[in-house]
Amino acid sequence: MKITGIALLGVGVVGGGTYQILTEKREFIKKHQNVDLQVVRVLEKNVARAKSLGIDENIVTQNIDNIVNDDSVKIVAEFMGGVEPARTFLLKCLAAGKSVVTANKEMLSKHWHELEAEAKKSGAGLYFEASCVGGVPIIRTLKNSLQGDTIKSITGIVNGTTNFILTKMSDEGKDYDEVLKEAQALGYAEANPVADVDGFDAMYKLSILSSLAFRTKVPLTAIDRKGISSITKEDIAFGKDLGYTLKLLAIAKNTEKGICAKVQPTFIPNSHPLASIKGSFNAVFLVGDYVGDIMLYGRGAGALPTGSAIVSDIVFAAKDKKPSYTSFKNTDKAERGVKFIDDENGFYIHLTVKDKIGVLAKITKTLSSKGISLKSVFQKSADEELVPLILITHKTTSKLLSKAMEEVEKFDEVVKVNNIICVE
Amino acid sequence: MKITGIALLGVGVVGGGTYQILTEKREFIKKHQNVDLQVVRVLEKNVARAKSLGIDENIVTQNIDNIVNDDSVKIVAEFMGGVEPARTFLLKCLAAGKSVVTANKEMLSKHWHELEAEAKKSGAGLYFEASCVGGVPIIRTLKNSLQGDTIKSITGIVNGTTNFILTKMSDEGKDYDEVLKEAQALGYAEANPVADVDGFDAMYKLSILSSLAFRTKVPLTAIDRKGISSITKEDIAFGKDLGYTLKLLAIAKNTEKGICAKVQPTFIPNSHPLASIKGSFNAVFLVGDYVGDIMLYGRGAGALPTGSAIVSDIVFAAKDKKPSYTSFKNTDKAERGVKFIDDENGFYIHLTVKDKIGVLAKITKTLSSKGISLKSVFQKSADEELVPLILITHKTTSKLLSKAMEEVEKFDEVVKVNNIICVE
Repeated sequence: MKITGIALLGVGVVGGGTYQILTEKREFIKKHQNVDLQVVRVLEKNVARAKSLGIDENIVTQNIDNIVNDDSVKIVAEFMGGVEPARTFLLKCLAAGKSVVTANKEMLSKHWHELEAEAKKSGAGLYFEASCVGGVPIIRTLKNSLQGDTIKSITGIVNGTTNFILTKMSDEGKDYDEVLKEAQALGYAEANPVADVDGFDAMYKLSILSSLAFRTKVPLTAIDRKGISSITKEDIAFGKDLGYTLKLLAIAKNTEKGICAKVQPTFIPNSHPLASIKGSFNAVFLVGDYVGDIMLYGRGAGALPTGSAIVSDIVFAAKDKKPSYTSFKNTDKAERGVKFIDDENGFYIHLTVKDKIGVLAKITKTLSSKGISLKSVFQKSADEELVPLILITHKTTSKLLSKAMEEVEKFDEVVKVNNIICVE
Repeated sequence: MKITGIALLGVGVVGGGTYQILTEKREFIKKHQNVDLQVVRVLEKNVARAKSLGIDENIVTQNIDNIVNDDSVKIVAEFMGGVEPARTFLLKCLAAGKSVVTANKEMLSKHWHELEAEAKKSGAGLYFEASCVGGVPIIRTLKNSLQGDTIKSITGIVNGTTNFILTKMSDEGKDYDEVLKEAQALGYAEANPVADVDGFDAMYKLSILSSLAFRTKVPLTAIDRKGISSITKEDIAFGKDLGYTLKLLAIAKNTEKGICAKVQPTFIPNSHPLASIKGSFNAVFLVGDYVGDIMLYGRGAGALPTGSAIVSDIVFAAKDKKPSYTSFKNTDKAERGVKFIDDENGFYIHLTVKDKIGVLAKITKTLSSKGISLKSVFQKSADEELVPLILITHKTTSKLLSKAMEEVEKFDEVVKVNNIICVE
């Protein structure tokens, strides 16, 4: 059997996991997939790290051109992270006709169009199963299944760090800062956690997933993004009392009026399949016009789960004689004629109010004057002057809500607007 | 664009749904998949039914040879159900080089090897995404993803009828017979419910899924099958008290000692992702050596969800220039050297005992003498002479348990062994 030469750009956590799988399962893959995959080049500054994985130092290089110009390399798997130099390196590889496999959601969501254009020119393939939800085959599902369905919505828990933090806050009644520190100590959160906790990582993934799902480009600029750092244990507890679980959701809806895409902390009913996704697990929930509701669930990160997806793509690339590309105009902007909208949803409003008769009536009236009605109200009676008041509204737009809240905030009885959180 | 001619064998519920999708989405599929699918032949006795779907009666035939000999037919989708004449018809179509798409799990699990052999001869494709878990892409996942993973186990709720019945028994505290009648009235269960409630349907699906997952044939004869008709509302309630949910599970494990495959009512902890799969929904839970736990969830039946999977396969078949077949020796028996075993698991034992001091000690001693230890004991105190006694054992084999139970049954204090149910 002819050997298919693989180059790995970086052998850190996921690159190392990938090397491990390709080595341990070379015979297994040969037997069942009829392709013989061999790592023939590794781009890595840390030669000691490469050697510790059992990689022959003669195949380790620090110069991308040694890979680009090596005809034995047919597939390049990238694990560098960040935009540069990953983008430049992969463009070179694609131009040389080498298929590319990547887990790099930031670079992909920002430069997919460029990479795809280059791939098309040379006939190379571009594969990115590992960019979203680790080993769960969500990209393959969106590309090679559900071909007759119009996907109406995609809702995902696509970031393990924030789901770990929110689950722990909810289960243990702890505050955000405390749990973040624990997550950092356990290696579930980075020292600089911004990419995760502020929703950037989820935004990159949503752009990729929703573009495939809706078969039109959903650029990063079209996505409303909000992180979880303003969430308190009190908010989570009040939501719980009312039957809701808080998740950082990546949501995209394909409606008749346009596409709505957002990443934000969101309360969902406890009965929703996504409410039971705990800890660092991820899940993507899709609604198709024929298939109805489907959900894919699994580990969103880690050396081996992500490595599993990379290896799946490498096998796919090795067997895929005629790579397919996106069916939409893949540019850096939205396609002409596609509208992006602010969709309606419910809102959780957490106020601190003076415990006076009539305060609820006053607020209700103001909301009502903007067409906003309430689904639930929860007022904790206490022998204190200041009490929390929790309102859950029926569906409305954030614009209408902002207008109403401008007035509510001015009331003497309203001491503080503690938080406003989306409810789906 | 060249038209790809499709023939539908039967336009009942799912065949009708498929016709609807292919018609409604012809342009959509053309645009995004670059194939133009047209139904050019329909095999259907009930011409009035075909006409009511908008099918031109000139393309309706009652003779399979009119399809086999029609060169414009490239893909045949079968909706007849049962083994014959579906098997004979599809063998003819494959021999004529037409790719086959089917949802027929009974025929496929019994004659997959024959169909695949015929397909290989002519180079035709054989696709069956719709045979298991409706529109959820579980077959595609097992065939085109996770190529580097050794799947350790597959656990599925793959029959909507029984999951509907068990969910309703659990939520409403009703007895089996009552809920079965309701399910029949609602169309969730057939007038003759045997195929569903006795686990045949789940067994067919498990044979297909586990063969693909373990990359070796798991024939029907290797699967231990038990249905749900002996389950009482009391069993479900006792299980609930101890933190368990009852599901009809299709389970296959790939262990060092051999493969264990079974369909049976099973208690799982409430925290297990499958415990929250309610009503007629289905889900398949996989454990891979690298990917870890993943789960796919969705509607397992219905005209449009199943039609969605059929259309997905038709598109796939139309684009798939070089069909792939199973990587294992697909015969009607297990491959040589593959062992099938009876795996260990916990057991729920529901006894009716005389409320005397020492009865528990006596039973515990007998179980212990066979090496069986208890995880939980639940004895309902009542002012009655006869009381229920619930035992949950640690892992053991059904063989050891049977031996112990032979002795336990003989005790004067043990009036009845009400039920024994698997616990995972």
